[in-house]
Amino acid sequence: MATIVMLGAGIMATALSFPASENGHDVRLVGTFLDREIVDSIQNTGVHPDLDLKVNDGVTAFQLEDAEKAFEGADLVMSGVNSFGVEWIGEQLATLMKPGQKFLCITKGMRAAEDGTLQLLPDTIRSYMTPELAESISWNAITGPSIAGELAVHHDTAVVFCGHDKDDLEWIADLFRTDYYHVWTSTDFVGHETGAATKNIYAFAAGFAEGLLKSQGKADNRYVMYNYGAALFAQGQKELRSFVTLMGGRPESADGLGGVGDMFVTSMGGRNVKAGTLVGQGIPFSEVRDQHMKGVTLEGVAAIKVIGKALGPLTERGVIKPEEYPLCRFLYSVVEEDAPLEIPWDKFFHDLT
Amino acid sequence: MATIVMLGAGIMATALSFPASENGHDVRLVGTFLDREIVDSIQNTGVHPDLDLKVNDGVTAFQLEDAEKAFEGADLVMSGVNSFGVEWIGEQLATLMKPGQKFLCITKGMRAAEDGTLQLLPDTIRSYMTPELAESISWNAITGPSIAGELAVHHDTAVVFCGHDKDDLEWIADLFRTDYYHVWTSTDFVGHETGAATKNIYAFAAGFAEGLLKSQGKADNRYVMYNYGAALFAQGQKELRSFVTLMGGRPESADGLGGVGDMFVTSMGGRNVKAGTLVGQGIPFSEVRDQHMKGVTLEGVAAIKVIGKALGPLTERGVIKPEEYPLCRFLYSVVEEDAPLEIPWDKFFHDLT
Repeated sequence: MATIVMLGAGIMATALSFPASENGHDVRLVGTFLDREIVDSIQNTGVHPDLDLKVNDGVTAFQLEDAEKAFEGADLVMSGVNSFGVEWIGEQLATLMKPGQKFLCITKGMRAAEDGTLQLLPDTIRSYMTPELAESISWNAITGPSIAGELAVHHDTAVVFCGHDKDDLEWIADLFRTDYYHVWTSTDFVGHETGAATKNIYAFAAGFAEGLLKSQGKADNRYVMYNYGAALFAQGQKELRSFVTLMGGRPESADGLGGVGDMFVTSMGGRNVKAGTLVGQGIPFSEVRDQHMKGVTLEGVAAIKVIGKALGPLTERGVIKPEEYPLCRFLYSVVEEDAPLEIPWDKFFHDLT
Repeated sequence: MATIVMLGAGIMATALSFPASENGHDVRLVGTFLDREIVDSIQNTGVHPDLDLKVNDGVTAFQLEDAEKAFEGADLVMSGVNSFGVEWIGEQLATLMKPGQKFLCITKGMRAAEDGTLQLLPDTIRSYMTPELAESISWNAITGPSIAGELAVHHDTAVVFCGHDKDDLEWIADLFRTDYYHVWTSTDFVGHETGAATKNIYAFAAGFAEGLLKSQGKADNRYVMYNYGAALFAQGQKELRSFVTLMGGRPESADGLGGVGDMFVTSMGGRNVKAGTLVGQGIPFSEVRDQHMKGVTLEGVAAIKVIGKALGPLTERGVIKPEEYPLCRFLYSVVEEDAPLEIPWDKFFHDLT
């Protein structure tokens, strides 16, 4: 039996408690300062209120002030917060983690320096630790198409655990593997994490078609706009592959579960798609942000803001070409400048020969 | 003004008549022996009954017996039948086409020899012609995500015209380009045509999740099975890429519009997805074929039968490895042997390292 500690008691961390606890492991969910009610609910009734499901026996919830106790004897530590909390989690883990522990990152996204240099979130977390601690830890992450609630109700889910050491990866994967949670492993940590971070960019665009149809009163027509959506998906997938290469990952990690599979599932729905739908209806993004979806966490928009902004300095420095990433650049203009929804078709697929 | 003749008056050929006629070209739709009522309808009322739309002025429909008249002065000839009619269209075009004409293929699919050698449909059509005629013709094809009805109602559609000669391709593309029909060109004819032929295989699998949910009474649950669908999509996309390479195409043609984009749109609905849904509900495929969808054209199932069957001899001859194409092999067992819907998860993503 292993002890697994998840910092952050959100829906993804809690969903992962199902296969792990069914394999007989001790799973400890530690709430952040935002998760007080979630932890209260699990402690009192066993129910995670956002998932609306009862967690398994063997899953224990802790308030943040009990984190130290929860981390005692942890074999595996996981980050279960969203990208907005990554600096906070870096600070926490710098004091809570012990040398030689294994880490498995759920949080997806990137940070960018002034000059456009992009950084994956596990590296952001590392930066809060002493070099000695950071180097002693085994860094791993979960990627692939995984809607939390589906995993929690035991629907087949297939993912890739990526990291640097195959033995560590297989050991961690075995903690979670069940007949419904199918886990592959890959040592292309950078490629898989880049795919996971950039796929969210394109989920926002996946909502446009429905919005356009609604605004034209055609949402229930016989002919909708799958062609339009598929064209954006195709351009998005090409850009995702370019990002994987740019970051130093293996291009083939843009295929399969970690790249196109994850992008597929992200395009099927969720908050980013909904924000895109509102923009498709003709509402300027600033109004979506400040009124219609005020206070809603939009990982895709956050990714567009960070990565889209970085494309400017990266182009100026000659790291990327001006004709690369036309869809990401366009989406950045939509969320930063309220640009109208005029797809720059003529800039797409520029390298087709 | 150019003269464009389409043999086959199905929905895709007719959809393409919209951009072409709006560009001022003379478009002639020639019905097959199965299209008599369609041609009657267009001749009498202008309405294509399956599309349920009126064709533009400048589009003329001909019955098959008037084919020779329709083909007079044709600058571009197109095949607008489905894959089941490819031998018939080969016979027709062998007598109707003139040396030096340009050809644009809409029909997608493959044929296989006894030893598993796969052939793209334009090559099947060629095989009915004298070598002199075949070599004098410019062979081109349309690929990419394109639901006919969406194009016909002027919804943005982005495609790739592929062929061997860039000048020919650009000339043909210019006949069709409008502000809603976005056409790229590529000289990777084999890669794009392979993507277009094999994507249909995986559309059948795209229906399984909905069927499984229905059979369990969970179709309206909060948590559905997008993870499952995304995993099949991801494995399908990897196999599509392998097919492109196997046939001698450029691997990158499995990206973008011609590969993953087309696979995306095909997974969003249609007859193959519906057949997959019925199988997901637990109905053996033979019963779907003989009862629930009797007489319905299933291009995806046809592709599985041809290509899935070819995988056997190709493996025996050492052209492909036994661990390659596990999803296509499984789908073949479903449509040929009524195999139960037990996804061979452990065979997927075998080359992940």
